[in-house]
Amino acid sequence: ENILEVKPVVYRQITVPQHGGKEYCTDSGLVVPSVSYELHKCLLASAERHGLSLERRLEMTGVCASQMALTLLGGPNRLTPKNNHQRPTVALLCGPHVQGAQGISCGRHLANHEVEVILFLPNFVKMQESITNELALYSKTSGKQVASIKDLPVSPVDLVINCLDCHENGFLRDQAWYLAAADWANQNRAPVLSIDPPVSGQKQAVEAKWTLSLGLPLPLDGGEARVYLCDIGVPKQVFQEVGINYHSPFGCKFIIPLHSA
Amino acid sequence: ENILEVKPVVYRQITVPQHGGKEYCTDSGLVVPSVSYELHKCLLASAERHGLSLERRLEMTGVCASQMALTLLGGPNRLTPKNNHQRPTVALLCGPHVQGAQGISCGRHLANHEVEVILFLPNFVKMQESITNELALYSKTSGKQVASIKDLPVSPVDLVINCLDCHENGFLRDQAWYLAAADWANQNRAPVLSIDPPVSGQKQAVEAKWTLSLGLPLPLDGGEARVYLCDIGVPKQVFQEVGINYHSPFGCKFIIPLHSA
Repeated sequence: ENILEVKPVVYRQITVPQHGGKEYCTDSGLVVPSVSYELHKCLLASAERHGLSLERRLEMTGVCASQMALTLLGGPNRLTPKNNHQRPTVALLCGPHVQGAQGISCGRHLANHEVEVILFLPNFVKMQESITNELALYSKTSGKQVASIKDLPVSPVDLVINCLDCHENGFLRDQAWYLAAADWANQNRAPVLSIDPPVSGQKQAVEAKWTLSLGLPLPLDGGEARVYLCDIGVPKQVFQEVGINYHSPFGCKFIIPLHSA
Repeated sequence: ENILEVKPVVYRQITVPQHGGKEYCTDSGLVVPSVSYELHKCLLASAERHGLSLERRLEMTGVCASQMALTLLGGPNRLTPKNNHQRPTVALLCGPHVQGAQGISCGRHLANHEVEVILFLPNFVKMQESITNELALYSKTSGKQVASIKDLPVSPVDLVINCLDCHENGFLRDQAWYLAAADWANQNRAPVLSIDPPVSGQKQAVEAKWTLSLGLPLPLDGGEARVYLCDIGVPKQVFQEVGINYHSPFGCKFIIPLHSA
């Protein structure tokens, strides 16, 4: 006789050293706790020490975020050879930081998939290496790049991807380019996807319809936004090193929706 | 009156400087020509010069190949919290070369998704840097590593991933570890996915059910294998630099099936 032992399902399979302030759950009921920005930063630093370099992470984040964006744009219904004359348009708003580099990587993969991408990146004399590397690759696509808000389309685009914010320099929000870009996004009537948004006491300058968190969620006060989580390829023992007991909540997916628990 | 101009669909939208010997088409009828190994190598070298480093390519190939493997393993039906006690097993056979490194990257992403991965990699005193980097990351998952065929499972696994071959050193095929691994794969009754298989005059040592080509297909004499193509993130102008006029055949996907045209 072949009797399979039925083990109870453990829904709380990720535990964190300090409660991050918020809990989410997946479609199948797995609990995903939030982590503080400081712990998230430790996790990424630990991953980098083991060889999961920023460059790798930028590539993986770009691939997965573009997969999400392609779905939001209509997926197979929108991107068929017969629709080649009405390619979707994405406005990608990036600041001069790692979050911006993540956006540019996403933009390259979208442009590679025949999406019309218009990247807004303010002019700075000196950019981080991660930004210049991503720009060099992006410049080989047919995507456009503008440094002034007045060169962004006036009519609504299909999707705005917001990578204006970074986690550490809140003062960027007071700069003229930031304010102009946020205004543009709020006036254009396209839905907004925010990639890797920071936790901030204030209201988000650009209201997102969807947010995409990386690895584990931060305790976002995301308003009405639907929260998604992106796998960024961190192995289990790297989570362990920063005190997180981790089992993948992703199943066979690399991007999953999270719900407030 | 709002009249949309209907442009005819161009199905032959990728053109190559020399005919690679074989043509494929996608599900939607787009023609995808094969390229010679030499031209494929030029394409990757050109991509690397523009910053699409081997490290980035390994990460992207690993993500996309693991997405394909997760689908082959049963996707959402197989990988649910309720199935946690019967996780699928993958045997990953790698040689000491870039193709092996691609396999290890895929294995890490599978292990990150709670698949039981057993990596076979023969012992060599000195390994390529790409292999040692991937191994360092893989070792932080719960995946296993063996250097001897006798440590591979005797009973059938769910999937064999074959990365034993490389494009340049055909003589590897005569080595004892290669022959033993090929024998093991042929005796285990699991279906085989071959990642980035080379063109060879001879019969494949391990018969694949599926093959995954990267960027553009080589003219494989793949027997009965079903051919899939993986996007590896190369921008259009990089294709142009090596004489390939390229429009993405991928639509919203990163992995697509190809059919003999």
